[in-house]
Amino acid sequence: MSIVVVGSVGIDTIETPFGREENVLGGSACYFSLAARNFTDVHMVSSVGEDFPQAHSELLRSRGIDTEGVTVSSDGETFRWEGRYDYDMKDPETVSVTLGVLGSLDPVVPEKSRNADYLFLANTDPEIQLKVLEQVSSPRIVACDTMNFWIDNKLQELKTLLGRVNILIINDSEARQLSEEPLMVRAARKIMDMGPEFLIVKRGEYGALLFSREDLFFAPSYMLEQVLDPTGAGDTFAGGFMGYVASRGKDLDFAGFKKGVAYGSVLASFTVEDFSVRRLGSLRKEEIEQRYAEFLRLSTM
Amino acid sequence: MSIVVVGSVGIDTIETPFGREENVLGGSACYFSLAARNFTDVHMVSSVGEDFPQAHSELLRSRGIDTEGVTVSSDGETFRWEGRYDYDMKDPETVSVTLGVLGSLDPVVPEKSRNADYLFLANTDPEIQLKVLEQVSSPRIVACDTMNFWIDNKLQELKTLLGRVNILIINDSEARQLSEEPLMVRAARKIMDMGPEFLIVKRGEYGALLFSREDLFFAPSYMLEQVLDPTGAGDTFAGGFMGYVASRGKDLDFAGFKKGVAYGSVLASFTVEDFSVRRLGSLRKEEIEQRYAEFLRLSTM
Repeated sequence: MSIVVVGSVGIDTIETPFGREENVLGGSACYFSLAARNFTDVHMVSSVGEDFPQAHSELLRSRGIDTEGVTVSSDGETFRWEGRYDYDMKDPETVSVTLGVLGSLDPVVPEKSRNADYLFLANTDPEIQLKVLEQVSSPRIVACDTMNFWIDNKLQELKTLLGRVNILIINDSEARQLSEEPLMVRAARKIMDMGPEFLIVKRGEYGALLFSREDLFFAPSYMLEQVLDPTGAGDTFAGGFMGYVASRGKDLDFAGFKKGVAYGSVLASFTVEDFSVRRLGSLRKEEIEQRYAEFLRLSTM
Repeated sequence: MSIVVVGSVGIDTIETPFGREENVLGGSACYFSLAARNFTDVHMVSSVGEDFPQAHSELLRSRGIDTEGVTVSSDGETFRWEGRYDYDMKDPETVSVTLGVLGSLDPVVPEKSRNADYLFLANTDPEIQLKVLEQVSSPRIVACDTMNFWIDNKLQELKTLLGRVNILIINDSEARQLSEEPLMVRAARKIMDMGPEFLIVKRGEYGALLFSREDLFFAPSYMLEQVLDPTGAGDTFAGGFMGYVASRGKDLDFAGFKKGVAYGSVLASFTVEDFSVRRLGSLRKEEIEQRYAEFLRLSTM
């Protein structure tokens, strides 16, 4: 079962206390796709400028990701982000950001991808997310991400979107901001009242929570020896989750979502071990399954 | 199997955004004992002044806690703490603190309690913890807690203590400070090199981690609808843990410790639902078992 994902494709420069990498591949759609492709076919929808390095495009294609929906625009440059992490390795300072061609993105889902069963709207302008949603004819499951910037600046559009998705995947501070509730159980209920039947709250090194109206599941995160660059962990988590869910080929099912959350945590644990998509892009299926088994063992009573 | 615990017994005044309670029962040994007594006999060692309210003593005794080792000193007043929590309900601001009789505590473990099999050294001066350790003849398991103040001011005494305990139970910022390591896997290894065979890292609303040299277990925390006062959650966790472990009556055993961590989380989840020991002090065994079963269900794949 294939997945369509819309989100950013970009060029990142990342500095952490452990190193600096310039002009590496980044963007929510890239991390998502490189995680999800381990489970199923992925069709990416986004836009880059003519400055987008050939090597980055080749990496995505060589990993089996369909990039036909990624238009190369002559109207501007590729989305660029430069961020710097402190020793706590959370909440990067944005040194600079250039929206470039993403600022005027009018997404077009290629004809052949419009009947995809699974749709993920990665973090980007809710208006763009809605445009993609309208082009995919009858997805079985629609999930989306968002961030504080859109809660602050496009709340109305975001609420329209939330009325039309099955699963919202956001981090805990975003859940608190969106619901205006400090306690997560209440925050979750308020958010589900906005539309999504399921909510996944990402808590970074503390794991994730999966909520439905009737049920709840806590998942820890995988414990690591080395964290070099946390960029993209959340998008990777979403990719692992949706990839696994799509590979099951079912409709909404809580038991499958629990396993999806565990796979999401496992995939994210690889991403942060190296800069950019270096570790994620070179993952083998056996490595994923081995760490998944270990993850289950460590969190089972 | 009985437990000896040394720690503070005090009078707290607590303010949170949800209320203010004056002169309520507090102190690490009280929270610990009121949790542990659900599983086993508890012998408390501490000191109070003549100002200690009769009602507080009676509460402890009426719950079956042996307070023979709690001396009533005419040398000063009872330990008092006034704290204030912000909306994040973490890291209270200490408005005032009076060490009182705890400042000159020369703990004496009553004769009948000296052959206890389980010993918990709740957060207090490491020199006092060591004095109690020397009086208990041959405990099967010794666990202790500490805090940033002692890491800053009595590191040498603390390290002597760590060389003689089996289990250290601290929170994550203390673990990072003690080990000078930001990543928890490495921090744990360094701390176990200081002596303890096991380390439990408390992460508040994010649960707890249990480490041994060969193994690791992640436990979530129980998710709550209501948090009125987080004071004593960590001491309650330790009491639930040690109480369960003592009730098994075994030596060091990882499988039992995992369940102990789950019971600790469950007990702590009750404590924070109301001010002081109000909820904890009135707990029934069925309530604990019911929430424990729910906890397992919510964290099992």
